Amino acid sequence: MDKGLLIVLSGPSGVGKGTVCSALRKQMPELVYSVSATTRAPRVGEQDGVNYFFKSHEQFQEMIKNDQLLEYAEYVGNYYGTPRDFVEETLASGKDIILEIEVQGALKVKEKFPEGVFIFLLPPSLDELKGRITGRGTESQDTIDHRMTVAVDEMNLIKHYDYAVVNDEIDLACKRIESIITAEHCKVRK
Amino acid sequence: MDKGLLIVLSGPSGVGKGTVCSALRKQMPELVYSVSATTRAPRVGEQDGVNYFFKSHEQFQEMIKNDQLLEYAEYVGNYYGTPRDFVEETLASGKDIILEIEVQGALKVKEKFPEGVFIFLLPPSLDELKGRITGRGTESQDTIDHRMTVAVDEMNLIKHYDYAVVNDEIDLACKRIESIITAEHCKVRK
Repeated sequence: MDKGLLIVLSGPSGVGKGTVCSALRKQMPELVYSVSATTRAPRVGEQDGVNYFFKSHEQFQEMIKNDQLLEYAEYVGNYYGTPRDFVEETLASGKDIILEIEVQGALKVKEKFPEGVFIFLLPPSLDELKGRITGRGTESQDTIDHRMTVAVDEMNLIKHYDYAVVNDEIDLACKRIESIITAEHCKVRK
Repeated sequence: MDKGLLIVLSGPSGVGKGTVCSALRKQMPELVYSVSATTRAPRVGEQDGVNYFFKSHEQFQEMIKNDQLLEYAEYVGNYYGTPRDFVEETLASGKDIILEIEVQGALKVKEKFPEGVFIFLLPPSLDELKGRITGRGTESQDTIDHRMTVAVDEMNLIKHYDYAVVNDEIDLACKRIESIITAEHCKVRK
């Protein structure tokens, strides 16, 4: 049996990774979703084990120490990480798994899984990205400014990715990602 | 403006390249189709300049001599070739162009256009391929035997291609090729 594909969906904060990923999961129910661990507080409506595994800083440090994370990164004062076992077991069972993670984390995954499919989600423009970061309305001005600086830095890392998908319309972005997954399954492995 | 993509659809004789390509052109009318030159006689319903440019052996030799062909190959006693200018002009104008050609010709195009997208159309099985070659009913038994031998040899050349698409159902095969083209347009050019 062929191993599944590791699909990494990343891009700057505020680009809409979560929204696109949710829409994609509805269109491709066979795609397994890697649930990240994080130390950040749940937002309204987020459920532990569904949106994230919500961890204390102490619990997260323990996971790092025991090598239970495929990657982890600090971002605006919180930790985000990908539990390793679930990813490896899913791939071994022949199923595709998608990771929706921050740019730094994605590059760490690439060191361990160079055969993964790395997709960078792009905003239609930087102005649009600023609007999305501001419009979320859950962050202070300092945080917004910091996130914009980080986002611009992250945009420069696109060269390490295999594909770039513009998130102009969610349905179009999903269709492009679905096409990328279909195409990757057709690739002749050398 | 970005250059268009050169898409090469190839595969063993009898696999259904022509049928898939026709269906694909209906689904993707924006895709430009490269019309081949050939010395073989027109089949019923085939039109000069639409299905092929039908040439005499003398005319074909003249095109070779004048370097007007991107590739050419002899196949079962006839010549097939791809007029060069049309392909290069289409790519320069930013449009995608698809070449539906024999396996040997495709590999010659790859020497000149390594950045092309090379798709190998596969039969669901070798038995299925034999059925299709026999079922066409336009060839002698010797020709059928020869074409099967050639087809098996051609199957071994799949390793030089970027993608393999199984022609189990025409609609599915077209959808996969369409996905490959979409994905290739999303590729981060390094």
